[in-house]
Amino acid sequence: MPKTNDIRINGKRLWQRLMRLAEIGATGNSGVNRQALTDGEHAAWRLLIQWGEEAGLRASTDDAANLFLTLKGANPDLPPLMAGSHLDTQPTGGKFDGAYGVIAALEAATTLAENAITPERNIIAVAWMNEEGSRFAPGMMGSAVFSGDRSIEAVRRVRDSDGISTGAEIDRLHDAFEGVKKQPIGFHVFAYIEPHIEQDVVLEREQKTIGIVTGIQGKKTFEITVSGTKGHAGTVAMAQRRDAVFAFARMAHMLEEQIGHYDADVKLTIGRVEVHPNAPSVIPDKVVFRVDLRHPDNQALEECSASLKTLCIHHASPCEASVCELVSASANTFDAELQRKIRAAAQQRKLPAMEMLSFAGHDARYLAGHCPSAMIFIPCKDGISHDESEWAEPDDVVAGAQVLLDVLNTM
Amino acid sequence: MPKTNDIRINGKRLWQRLMRLAEIGATGNSGVNRQALTDGEHAAWRLLIQWGEEAGLRASTDDAANLFLTLKGANPDLPPLMAGSHLDTQPTGGKFDGAYGVIAALEAATTLAENAITPERNIIAVAWMNEEGSRFAPGMMGSAVFSGDRSIEAVRRVRDSDGISTGAEIDRLHDAFEGVKKQPIGFHVFAYIEPHIEQDVVLEREQKTIGIVTGIQGKKTFEITVSGTKGHAGTVAMAQRRDAVFAFARMAHMLEEQIGHYDADVKLTIGRVEVHPNAPSVIPDKVVFRVDLRHPDNQALEECSASLKTLCIHHASPCEASVCELVSASANTFDAELQRKIRAAAQQRKLPAMEMLSFAGHDARYLAGHCPSAMIFIPCKDGISHDESEWAEPDDVVAGAQVLLDVLNTM
Repeated sequence: MPKTNDIRINGKRLWQRLMRLAEIGATGNSGVNRQALTDGEHAAWRLLIQWGEEAGLRASTDDAANLFLTLKGANPDLPPLMAGSHLDTQPTGGKFDGAYGVIAALEAATTLAENAITPERNIIAVAWMNEEGSRFAPGMMGSAVFSGDRSIEAVRRVRDSDGISTGAEIDRLHDAFEGVKKQPIGFHVFAYIEPHIEQDVVLEREQKTIGIVTGIQGKKTFEITVSGTKGHAGTVAMAQRRDAVFAFARMAHMLEEQIGHYDADVKLTIGRVEVHPNAPSVIPDKVVFRVDLRHPDNQALEECSASLKTLCIHHASPCEASVCELVSASANTFDAELQRKIRAAAQQRKLPAMEMLSFAGHDARYLAGHCPSAMIFIPCKDGISHDESEWAEPDDVVAGAQVLLDVLNTM
Repeated sequence: MPKTNDIRINGKRLWQRLMRLAEIGATGNSGVNRQALTDGEHAAWRLLIQWGEEAGLRASTDDAANLFLTLKGANPDLPPLMAGSHLDTQPTGGKFDGAYGVIAALEAATTLAENAITPERNIIAVAWMNEEGSRFAPGMMGSAVFSGDRSIEAVRRVRDSDGISTGAEIDRLHDAFEGVKKQPIGFHVFAYIEPHIEQDVVLEREQKTIGIVTGIQGKKTFEITVSGTKGHAGTVAMAQRRDAVFAFARMAHMLEEQIGHYDADVKLTIGRVEVHPNAPSVIPDKVVFRVDLRHPDNQALEECSASLKTLCIHHASPCEASVCELVSASANTFDAELQRKIRAAAQQRKLPAMEMLSFAGHDARYLAGHCPSAMIFIPCKDGISHDESEWAEPDDVVAGAQVLLDVLNTM
């Protein structure tokens, strides 16, 4: 593969494709609701496969419903280079989170094909299944199965709030794309690079265009079930009650006080709360809630996790609480050689760059255990993501994809 | 009307009808889910109308979808006697709450008809629309419209969680029963008596069969909206957040501490909580919750209500909170003469009776502002109601209906 640096991506096409993709699941309020394995994701697959085919990329999938678009290399038996992210969004998500990485990887591969450059290895643009976890929790299913961190059987059993299983929805997707060839789960990969919006204000504040991601902070998620006793809101004396909502309120208040202020780096979120039976004049007998706990330091994460369990059990009284750890992902460090290549590419293009930690989780966390991996961040407006107002500037979008292409072009 | 005391209700039929009615909306777990204006309530109407017709009772309704089954009296132009309750249940309700009062009233009228007794006035067995308020909140819609405390227009605008309006569901019910004559809203009533399970343990503890209800404690309900800022659970620093769930937790915790312990008589419940967007890794930007506040003393109720508003606004920071008072029903006192008649009837039948306050709200609260009103309580097992395990003993069920018949028979 020629070590030339004058190949430029088509920035206009890249931007137009991002905007076109955002029409699938558009909320009507600038945002996107395209949750995992929905009809919206089917439509996104069709579009991506079509764009890939136009550039000679061949679509394939695996049992975890990951989508691979492969540009054939001179030596297709070598482990491929891979880049991408995911196509699913939060219920009120934006146009860039996930979509950007997939479209940037497609653009890089398309640009190589257009320039009649045959890379040494296959280059794969990938879309991992269910990164967000808003429909089927927890997320990063496709990458975690690919890397061997979760079993496909366990993932298939997870159900959404309507009781529909991930397995049934994977099968429905594969039925809709029956011509798409199956690859084995977790095939050998030479290196993985994931472009993504930063989802924080650091690049914006420091006026940098490219973030060279050094690693991802650790994350644990918990599901806590509070069990009390149902009763009539007008008759049962306060002293006799086992009210699951008041127990939840005490627990959440104590978690915020004790863990939310652990240090400046901790992140604690109760994003999902379900109250049963959730009727105005019935004392609630059950609350199920999710805690998302993150810290860049693994020891701090373990300490916070231990006190979370203690606090929940202690403050549940007179109700009872059970704490189930759903996800435990340690902080990780990305491949030094890939970081170096990203830094060099940014320098060459005269793009201001900086090293930084990722505070959000990404599929690259799982890939990092499977092959040398890295991430390229670009700024997003006011650090806002997982929101309809999510925004990245076209120049930054183009810059990140160009750096990706340049890095792939040196490998 | 003859002042005879030897007319006995048919206890076996009364019990069988209660059990038959409980099949409509049966949860499969001994409970009933027959919420207001659902197909289940349509089926309950059909059954009640059929049973009424078999005894010569004529069905009618009004714009608020109340159901009236009228036994014609000697002088039908006189204001009628009325007895009954409601047919709707909580989502996981029982066989007796509401249903008992309607079936007892039907049984009393049926017994008179069977004994060829023509009462002086019309006797109406009534089923009020949407007492529970679990589908369309707040409840007691039918009785409040009938008594003039709420407008039919306001009630019709209320929507359930699927966005379906009460008005559309009233029209759907009336379309399904187009042969049923319409009465004017709030016609003149001579007296109203509501038999009901106690929903508390007082009768059981004191080993009494009949509760002569002196009044109903006051009740206020509030809807509180907490507004914060959405964000990514992994990136936004804790100090920068406006997390609506943590604000809710502080508010709920302070409400429990400050108002829940006001005195031994106060009742405070947060039965319904909705979190937005309710996704595990999104900092929630909105929580909407309902507070149910009750007290037998009107001044205490006002004091608690005032501090509730202050506490919510104060502890919402850094989020914002708005407090909307949905229902304000003062404590009321039932008609002394009707209470006397109930006591006399119980004595005559050698049924142990006691005076007591109702801690639960009932349609009789609204009727009390419209005509002389009273309530007859019977014990329920362990005081449990609004629950699938709700239970009343057949002997008590029969006793309460007999007292109702005896009282009607003296008027």
